Amino acid sequence: MTKNEALINYSLRIGDTCLILGQRMSEWCSNGPTLEEDIAMTNISLDLIGQARTMLTYAGEIEGKGRTEDDFAYKRNEREYFNSLLSERPNGHFGDTVARNFLQSAYFYHFYNALISSKDNMLSAHATKSIKEVTYHLRHSAEWVIRLGDGTSESKEKIQNSFDEIWDFVGDLFETNEVDRLLLNEGISVDQTKIQQEWNSTVTEVLTKAGLTRPNDGYMQTGRLEAKHSEYLGHLLAEMQFLQRAYPDAKW
Amino acid sequence: MTKNEALINYSLRIGDTCLILGQRMSEWCSNGPTLEEDIAMTNISLDLIGQARTMLTYAGEIEGKGRTEDDFAYKRNEREYFNSLLSERPNGHFGDTVARNFLQSAYFYHFYNALISSKDNMLSAHATKSIKEVTYHLRHSAEWVIRLGDGTSESKEKIQNSFDEIWDFVGDLFETNEVDRLLLNEGISVDQTKIQQEWNSTVTEVLTKAGLTRPNDGYMQTGRLEAKHSEYLGHLLAEMQFLQRAYPDAKW
Repeated sequence: MTKNEALINYSLRIGDTCLILGQRMSEWCSNGPTLEEDIAMTNISLDLIGQARTMLTYAGEIEGKGRTEDDFAYKRNEREYFNSLLSERPNGHFGDTVARNFLQSAYFYHFYNALISSKDNMLSAHATKSIKEVTYHLRHSAEWVIRLGDGTSESKEKIQNSFDEIWDFVGDLFETNEVDRLLLNEGISVDQTKIQQEWNSTVTEVLTKAGLTRPNDGYMQTGRLEAKHSEYLGHLLAEMQFLQRAYPDAKW
Repeated sequence: MTKNEALINYSLRIGDTCLILGQRMSEWCSNGPTLEEDIAMTNISLDLIGQARTMLTYAGEIEGKGRTEDDFAYKRNEREYFNSLLSERPNGHFGDTVARNFLQSAYFYHFYNALISSKDNMLSAHATKSIKEVTYHLRHSAEWVIRLGDGTSESKEKIQNSFDEIWDFVGDLFETNEVDRLLLNEGISVDQTKIQQEWNSTVTEVLTKAGLTRPNDGYMQTGRLEAKHSEYLGHLLAEMQFLQRAYPDAKW
């Protein structure tokens, strides 16, 4: 594996997770519980899709075969997607969405904070720009975790169940392979072990504030690094890619 | 009719048209033809919903009965909505959306430009803030009208048909009643005849640039002022209000 091949894969991992979570959040668009929350969730979706565009465009530039952000977004099948399993989890009810977004945002927050020091100028610039957005995403979702956990007994039970059910998928966030090792040697990628420690501490702090119980780390589902996905990604891509699949490169 | 009653109605007309068009645009959210256009349309939706919130909140303040923006958005039925018939037209294909948005944005552009001089401070401030957003909406949609009209013979035919089909609904934009007359005497509302002249000139200019034929002003559908709507508004509200109708004031 060359450094460029590793860098393409690393960029796709970031971009794909942003794109898939952004697509998930867009499903809330116009269906939020209040106008204010509707707008907040749509803005988060836009932030994520913006981040995805930067990373997919970058992957195409390194590859040098003329593939654009739209080629990557609309013309790959699910076995070519490197998003986290967490990001493709369905929205479920509002608490399910909050739990998923909180866990993924806490990851991005610490990930981007570390990636700012990357020796790759593009990744460093992307992290610097994105950290402001992700800081808001983390605050927004953490506030909801606390509000729901510290709310009625019904809201507490629901959000606790949301965390219990999604917990199998957090291990996948921290898996590494030769891509990470190669790029870590070059000072380009981040130390996933350190990210995991910081993520653990943020998650534990917020769950404690919310009066919730941190689920036990049992068996963890993985697949991100090998582009292996749950059945949910296929459905999501079918919807997202419908137009391009039905009318390839449609020009009016 | 008191001045306050007229002002509430006038604010709802603005807010409702923004809300309904914003909701229509949000239906494109995650279904745009490219990532860039997807984001552009979602941003336009967010602008419009933001404008709606200001006006619905203002209507509630003047009314003084404690109704919030969410009460107005989620708890009125279609015969209490004062949006333009144009804004509730379905998205259809991309060209239909472009034609509808162009005609409505051209209206808002000239309307807000005049409303800046309103003696009502809140309406004037709202117009000053919104004109920047609407200037972009108008430019975006006008560029697409020209691009499609000046594109392939297929795209030209499609966008011409879009204008022909939606033309019945533009007359409704300029209808007036005693609300307009009362507020015009107070220096609060705008002169709709002047708006219509300016709108005509913008629309003719862009259609000419696009090589399209301006449809003839034949029979015009109306209803906005009496809150009479096409069957499309009921469906739109059913989707938008589902959560609140199913779980009134749901608290978690």
